[in-house]
This record gives sequence, C-alpha cells and structure tokens, in this order.
Amino acid sequence: MPHYTPPLRDMQFVLHELLNVTEALRAMPAHAHVDVDTFNAVLEEGGKFASEVIAPLNQRGDAEGCTLNRDTHEVSTPGGFKAAYEKFVEGGWPSLGCDAAYGGQGLPVTLNQCLYEMLNSASQAWTMYPGLTHGAYECLHAHGTPEQRQTYLPKLTSGEWTGTMCLTEAHCGTDLGLLRTRAEPQADGSFLITGNKIFISAGEHDLAANIIHLVLARLPDAPEGSKGISLFVVPKFLVNADGSLGARNTISCGALEHKMGIHGNATCQMNLDGACGWLVGQPHKGLSAMFVMMNAARLGVGVQSLGLTEVAYQNAAAYAKDRLQSRALSGAKAPDKPADPIIVHPDVRKMLLTARAYAEGGRALAIFTALLIDQETSSTDEELKQHAADLVALLTPIVKAFLTDNAWISTSQCLQVFGGHGYVREWGMEQFVRDARINMIYEGTNTIQSLDLLGRKVLLDKGKKLTKLIELVQQLIHDECVHAEMLEFINPLADLGEKLTKLSTELGLKAFGNPDEVGAAAVDYLRLVGHLVFAYFWARMARVALDHPESEDPFYRAKLATARFYFAFLLPETTALMRSARAGVKPLMAMDASLF
Amino acid sequence: MPHYTPPLRDMQFVLHELLNVTEALRAMPAHAHVDVDTFNAVLEEGGKFASEVIAPLNQRGDAEGCTLNRDTHEVSTPGGFKAAYEKFVEGGWPSLGCDAAYGGQGLPVTLNQCLYEMLNSASQAWTMYPGLTHGAYECLHAHGTPEQRQTYLPKLTSGEWTGTMCLTEAHCGTDLGLLRTRAEPQADGSFLITGNKIFISAGEHDLAANIIHLVLARLPDAPEGSKGISLFVVPKFLVNADGSLGARNTISCGALEHKMGIHGNATCQMNLDGACGWLVGQPHKGLSAMFVMMNAARLGVGVQSLGLTEVAYQNAAAYAKDRLQSRALSGAKAPDKPADPIIVHPDVRKMLLTARAYAEGGRALAIFTALLIDQETSSTDEELKQHAADLVALLTPIVKAFLTDNAWISTSQCLQVFGGHGYVREWGMEQFVRDARINMIYEGTNTIQSLDLLGRKVLLDKGKKLTKLIELVQQLIHDECVHAEMLEFINPLADLGEKLTKLSTELGLKAFGNPDEVGAAAVDYLRLVGHLVFAYFWARMARVALDHPESEDPFYRAKLATARFYFAFLLPETTALMRSARAGVKPLMAMDASLF
Repeated sequence: MPHYTPPLRDMQFVLHELLNVTEALRAMPAHAHVDVDTFNAVLEEGGKFASEVIAPLNQRGDAEGCTLNRDTHEVSTPGGFKAAYEKFVEGGWPSLGCDAAYGGQGLPVTLNQCLYEMLNSASQAWTMYPGLTHGAYECLHAHGTPEQRQTYLPKLTSGEWTGTMCLTEAHCGTDLGLLRTRAEPQADGSFLITGNKIFISAGEHDLAANIIHLVLARLPDAPEGSKGISLFVVPKFLVNADGSLGARNTISCGALEHKMGIHGNATCQMNLDGACGWLVGQPHKGLSAMFVMMNAARLGVGVQSLGLTEVAYQNAAAYAKDRLQSRALSGAKAPDKPADPIIVHPDVRKMLLTARAYAEGGRALAIFTALLIDQETSSTDEELKQHAADLVALLTPIVKAFLTDNAWISTSQCLQVFGGHGYVREWGMEQFVRDARINMIYEGTNTIQSLDLLGRKVLLDKGKKLTKLIELVQQLIHDECVHAEMLEFINPLADLGEKLTKLSTELGLKAFGNPDEVGAAAVDYLRLVGHLVFAYFWARMARVALDHPESEDPFYRAKLATARFYFAFLLPETTALMRSARAGVKPLMAMDASLF
Repeated sequence: MPHYTPPLRDMQFVLHELLNVTEALRAMPAHAHVDVDTFNAVLEEGGKFASEVIAPLNQRGDAEGCTLNRDTHEVSTPGGFKAAYEKFVEGGWPSLGCDAAYGGQGLPVTLNQCLYEMLNSASQAWTMYPGLTHGAYECLHAHGTPEQRQTYLPKLTSGEWTGTMCLTEAHCGTDLGLLRTRAEPQADGSFLITGNKIFISAGEHDLAANIIHLVLARLPDAPEGSKGISLFVVPKFLVNADGSLGARNTISCGALEHKMGIHGNATCQMNLDGACGWLVGQPHKGLSAMFVMMNAARLGVGVQSLGLTEVAYQNAAAYAKDRLQSRALSGAKAPDKPADPIIVHPDVRKMLLTARAYAEGGRALAIFTALLIDQETSSTDEELKQHAADLVALLTPIVKAFLTDNAWISTSQCLQVFGGHGYVREWGMEQFVRDARINMIYEGTNTIQSLDLLGRKVLLDKGKKLTKLIELVQQLIHDECVHAEMLEFINPLADLGEKLTKLSTELGLKAFGNPDEVGAAAVDYLRLVGHLVFAYFWARMARVALDHPESEDPFYRAKLATARFYFAFLLPETTALMRSARAGVKPLMAMDASLF
C-alpha cells in the first residue's frame, strides 16, 4: 500500500519563508489574528487526518467503487468512506475556510488549500465529496438570497450536507449553451425542473443527510444559447421552514459511470423529473453565477493534481532508495549489497526530480494563488484587491491546466520508477495515474483553459493582466541580477520573459487576421506561461535556499539542487513550445475534415 | 464500443509505394514468390479477422479479466477468447511467418508484422497469447536441439500449443543476474527446476492444450551474476515420444496479477517445484539465447503500441467529426447545425494529427525494420545481411521505446478529444491508454532501451551502426536537396542529422570521463534518434505524395498534410531534447540520495 507523509516542512517553507503569508494576512482585518503557529498547528492536525484517516481508504475505494441500488436510487460509497466523512465533520474540517456568519472558522483560503493538497494526496476520490461541497457553498454565498443562505450555508459549512454542480448533459459539456434542462415557474416562486444531467460528481451518496444540487436549466422565456441559462438550487430533500428535512425531491441518480479512475467518487447520471428548485441569482445569468463555483473548482482541480504529484513522488523516491537492481554505470555504489539501489541511476533520478520539481513548483504557485484570493476577497485596500483579482484571473487556467498536465507526466514517471511493479494495483502507483487523468478534463478541459488564458485573459484584455505577471518577474530580475550566484536562474528567466512578451504580441497580431490562430497556439502558450511562473518561483526558492549557505538543515541543499534540476531539464521544454506555438494554424487546417 | 478499420491503404502505401518490399523480397530465394497480390490478399483477410473476430472481444476482455481456479491452478480467459483463438488456429494464422520445415507458411516477417499491427489494434491483451508463442518459436528455432525443435516447433507453428518467457523474479526484473531459480541436473539429461517467477504473460490459460515455457535458471556450478544463467524449456504437460501429452509438469500458476490494463491477458506468478526441463543452448549462455526472443519481443512491443495508436486515432477522428460542440473561433462552419463538429477546432486537430503522424510514421519504421529482419535472415547477400543486421540492432530499441512513448502520448490525446466521455469505460478510449502503459515497461523498460541504444549500439560500437543510419539520411538529402518542393522537409532533417552526429560525439567524450553521463542523456538521446528516423520517413513519404500532384486519390493530399504537421508541430520537440541531452549528469546527482 502506498504511504503518505504530509509535506509540512515544504509547506512551511512556501508559507513562511518564500511568501511570508502571515504578514500579508495581517494587513486584512479578517485574518489579522492568523499567525505562523496557527498555520502550523492546523496543518499538522490536517496532515494527521489526511495521512491516518483518509490515505488508508484510497486503494479500497478504488477497488470497491460506488454501488447504485436500482430500486431506491441510493448510492453506497466504498467501505470506510462514510465513517471517515463523519470524523471529518466532527473535527470541524469542512468549516475551516467558511464565513463565521454561518458557523465557519473564517480561516484564510491559503490555509484551507494546504489542507486540500494533503487530502488529495491521501485520496482524490474521497476529497471530491467535501471539495464540491465547498464549491456549492461559495456559489450560494456569493449569489444566494439571504433566505437561501440561511437555509443552506450553515449545513454546508458544518458538512452535514454536501453539494454538487449539475452542468453537463449528454450532448453538451464544453458548450453549455446547448443545454436542454427546463425550469417551469410555479405560483409560489419556485420552479419545477426537468432534464437529465451526466457526469455529476458526488451526485448521490450515503455520506450526508442531504445533497444540495446547483443546477443549470432554461426558463421558458430564455434566449437561445449561453445567455439563456439560469441557476437553481435543488436539494435532494426539501427543507422545512424549521430547517428539518422534508419530502424527497424528484432528483435522483439513474446510473453510475464506470470510469478510468476516481472510482471512490460517485459519478452520477442525474434525472430531474419536475424537481423543486429555486432560482439563484438573476434569470438567464446562471453561467456567470456558476463561474464563481467554476473558478474555485478549477483551482481545486489543480490542487488535486498537486496532491497526486506529491504522493506519487514520495512513493517512487522511497522505492528507488530501497529497490536493488543493477550497478551504477560509474561503478558499484553499494558493493556490500547484491546490487545498487536504483536511485544511483541518473534516469531514475531524472524521473524522480521531474515529479519533485513539479510538486514543489506547483505548491509555490498554488499557495501564491490562494494568498491572492485572500487578498482579493479580504483585503481592505481596493488597489491591492484589483491587482490580486487580475492575477488570480490570469493564474487560474495555469493552475488548472499546467498542474494537471504536470501531474499526468509526473505520476506516469513515478509509476515507471517501479518498473513492472508500477503496473500492478498492489503498489498503488497506477491508481495515481488513473486518478490524475480526469483532472485534465473536468471543470473545463485543458484546451478550454488555454483558450481562456490566451483568448480572454491575455488578448481580449490587451495584455494588462499579463503585464502584472511580467512586472513581478522583472522586479525579481531587477533585484537579483546583481547577485552572481543567482544568474544561473535569472538569465533563463529573463530570456523566457522577453520571448513570451514578444510571442504574446505576435499571436495578438495573427489572431487579428484569423481568430483560429488563438486555438492553434493556446495550449503551447499556456505551458510557456506555466514555465515562466515556475521559473520565477524556482528562482525565488533558490534565493531563499542560497540565503542559508551554512545551514545544517539539508532542506536548503535539496531545494537548491531541485531548482538547478528544473532549470537544466524541465525549462528547456520552452524551446520546443516556442516553436510549436509559432507554427500557426495552417498545418492544422490544411486537411479536409473528411480525410481524417 | 470502439470501432476498427484495418488501415490497408496505408499499409499498402508503405509496403508497395514507399519501401517497394516485394522487389526487395524477390532478391531472397525464400521469398521470391511473394508478390503484391499475396501481400494484399493476406492483409485483407487478416484485417477481417482482426476487426470482425478479435476487436469485438477487447472491451469484454478488459471488463472480465482472467480468473484463477485456486484448486486446479487453471486460468480461464475472458469470454470469447478461446473461441477466437480456435478460429485463429483453424485459419492457419499462427504459421504465417514460420519455417516450412515445421509446417509453417514461410511468409516474410514484413507480412506477419502487418498482421500483428492489426491484431494489436483489435486487442493487445488477446494478441499477446499468439505473440509470445511466436517468440518462443523463434527462440527454440534458433537454439533448440534438433529433437527439441521436432518436439515443440510443429505445435507452436500450428498454434495448438502456446509459449511463454519466464524471466522475472520478485527481486529481479531489469537485473536478471540476480535470479535465484535453480536447475538440478538429472541422470537422464533433464533438469529439475525450482523457483518462483512473476509477471509471466500468458503463463497459464485455457486457449491451448499445452504451454511451452522458456525458463531462465541457474545450474549448480553457475558463476554468479548474468554469466551464470541458463535457458530451459519446461512444458506444462510433458510430451511423450509419440508427441502425445504426458504427465502434468510441476510448473503452475500461483496467482494472477491485478493490473492497470491488458486485463484479458493472464499475468501469472509461476511456481516451479522441481519441474522437468531441458537445457536450451549452452550452459550459462541462457541470456544470449533468450535475447533472440527478447529482440523479437521488443519489436513486437513497439508494434503493440503502433496498433493502439492507430485504433485510438481512428476512434478519436470519428468522434471529432461527429460531436457537435461550440463554434469555430473563426465563425460557424456548420451554421445549419446547433454547433460545429469539434474537428473545426485547431487544438482538436493537433491532438488528432499527433496520433496520426505517430501512427503513420511508426508504421513506416516498423515495416522498414521488419524488411531489414527479412534481409538479415533470408538474404543470400552476406554484405546486405550484415548491413541489415546492424540497422536492426540500432533500430530495435527505437521501435520499442519511441513507438511506445508515442502511443502513451497519442492514446492520451485521443482520449482527451472525447472530453469526459473519454474517461468513462463505455467508449473504450481509456482502455487504450491503460493497455498502452505496460509497453513502456516490459521487455526492458524504455530507460533500458535508451541505454542499449546510446551505450551499446552507438558508443561501444564507435558509431558504426549509427553511421549506417546517417548514410541513409544523407543519401535522401543528396537526392532531394535539388528539388525545391522538398526543402521544407530536407532542411530540418539535415539540420537534425548534423546536430545529432555532433551530440553523439560529445556524449562519447563525456562518457569517457564519467560513464554516468550515458545514463543522464540516454532517454533524450533515444527520442532524438527516433525523431531523426521519423523525419527521414516523413520526408520520404512526402516525396511519394508529391509525385502524385494530379492524383484524384485524396490519400496523397492527406499524407502531405500530415507530413507538414509532423515537421511543424512534433519535430520541434528535438530543440528541447537537444538541450536536456546536453544538461549532463551533475544536476541529477547533486542531491544526496537521503534527501529524496
């Protein structure tokens, strides 16, 4: 069975040494009281919960999967999931980042997100249940009426109820404008909703007393397309005026999907047969209301992949130190043993360091983004709020797509370290790969993320948000270019920044001539920006490590070595990406569709 | 359920238009009679068998897997596998490439390998049963005594019996020198073999009356390490003098592995408890005898991945033409429909063309290599035999590792074309990805392949074999550089050839200083050589397509478009590989193992 050790030291490094988050939080009245000790204590407890309660369930969840009772339409989660969820609720974990007005602890997003990294390392499938709940919480918090908030938020905060997002239908995923689910207004202000949804994660299960579905549907007078979609809250059980559960609503699970991975999470086909719902936000503005949830979910998906990258790395590193096989090409390193541990082989190290550099770089980016969200939501400085909001908008597709692509690469390489043992279920490595695969798809495929980045966040915005990122990079270059020991990091960073700025302008001009040029370059462009961000953080992390030259803590030596690996072996991908991002749409569109 | 159409037109293009294989075969007495019509007729029938009999079993095989009866130690294959295997034997397919002396049809490897591409597209798991049999056939054909050949080869040729290779033990996969299975000589010249093997594909099943295991074990007087390993033939049922089956031998399946994919193939733990075996080849020379089988198996693994790339591409292309979702950024392309088919989106085409370019490039390389094997084994021209043998030795690790890495990339991108539907089992795409994953591991991991290429085939050989490849490239450059329409292909090919030659020399010098430099660069180096070979074949395929400018057959337009895509979008990876291949071993070894 795979093991998992919460990476507390590395989290603390990012939180306290790299980003100094508690100082940034002190400037916000809502978080002024959150000090380093609070962070560390909560993370230590959260890490224990993740590694001791959740991690042991992950393989069992994969093997057992979820089960639908076709008579009652009820879904059973794998053995142990329910008991663990009860402990999670008892421990108050769901309320960590929630509003005190609804019983939450009001702690920063930054902290909650570190907790979620650990939960996802322990079990992505299990963690999706509370993760989606938090998304529903945020959506209702932002767009619900006062009555809706009072009805639903306390129970979502406590975790007694869970939540879902019901968007996709069989004929529409990416293109929600095509959706057909209908909402008929009733005299009492409610709506009767009818339609079929698919791919609804955590759509039905036995963990909680009620499930609060956020459902996209069309009103009778809705304009066609994406401007005619409204958002409704549809509880599994209706809620009485006193808050107790009433009648079973006519929303139910018709079937479970059989998937490549995340077997422990119930992926449901949901049938709404005149289900009672209530409008959330304005009529026909459902997509923008849902996007509150989507943006949080996209960051959440990036953090799922961060968690998988970390746990896959830990297990592959342990195996590589333990497994004896062949001798180093440069001569035996463990002559007293029948063979050397495979970590002596440079390519094994390359696979391990790839995962490590992506995990640690991803952690820095994810925590940085979470801190920006805290600034966006809780700062009292309007200029800082806007600055943070712009960077969050720019970084969201990068966190989602870059971290999930990197996890696919990393978990696969960590599997490879195990040789044939990586391919069998017993060691758990192939589950990480299978689980990681969905993250490149849901909450907007990675192609959609890249179109969002290049088309919307960069070009439509005329580069304003991108400039804010470039300014951060330039500031670092300005600060560090006088330090000789930093040039190995600063020079390639500066080089990439300049090339990327130039490429952005070029692509803007090309897109002006043919909008399809955006689609041709977007995926490569996103990876380029991802590497710029990673190179920026790896340079900053190297700086912190270099500031501890005499430290007895080998942590800093490892950090510096990993930074150097990143610049030597991973950043070079940008030379290829730069070329393919420039290759243009013509070679893609030359062939008639009929010839494919 | 996925569909599969045998790519007969493209195979014929490679066989007859690109490589003109029948002309090359005509020079060999053994194959002088094999004409174009024979090729086409056999492939058409083979394609029917693959698509009509085997393909429909693939998803069922994945869902059902194999079952071990713990009392009898017998293994049941998934429903339909046995009946299909009976048809395969009845149709005479196992004997296609086998020696007429043992009842074979004596057809070229080139033809057999096209058959196997199609079988693997239909079902890799099923095809492994006959595939491994053919490996055992080749090993016994090359190293068996006349008596052993007479005993086993006719039944392996007909397919009445199947074969396996029993190498791996729990503590040794890559490093076979550590293996512990023991062989005790008996007075009658046989041996009693005792030990435990793992990961034995097709180790036990219900398809055939007998299973002929080729087992690596140590003799009592064996030197330590890889120079003390001998090869034995160990039949499941002993064979009486008259060829009938005798007593059940004491080799049996102790357990089945639960794997990420290829569920339909039984991956067995095999226990040998004083099993009767007979030495094959010389004592202590088992590894080199086994390598006959291994080299064939490595090419076979490449062809497994070629098959998966092709079938994944076909299904993703069909889906992309059918699935309506969103409008092209450049304006509606199907205004009469609710949305455009997703093939209008440049990135969807990029994913499809990636798989297509890797499938068609892989097919050219695989058939070229098969023809070289025919020349190596059947030519009467000693110089040509040696030339072919050198190129086969050089290309084998490339076929194995480059094609399997490409299939991992391609099947994953084809899954992505389906969005969420790619992640659910129903569409079959995720099975292709799971099945493809093992190919990067077994028959020598792709790291081992790269060490074989750079360390053994290039550096130890002082570049002699590599020079033969470079000469082919230079000949093409020489022939085509005067044709303006070919420069878009010839220039980047020449550029890569020069860079690669220089890099090979550099790495040789570095390895002289530190042998670990080979391990640091090998994987990137192999992909670079892979791209050189693909660029060479894509340039040649473009040449053939350009020779049909007025053709009404749109096949040539598609071929040219795919060639241009390859050079614009896939070949640029070499710029990054060139950098990381030069990054050297230092950034990999800087960190103490204890800090991982």
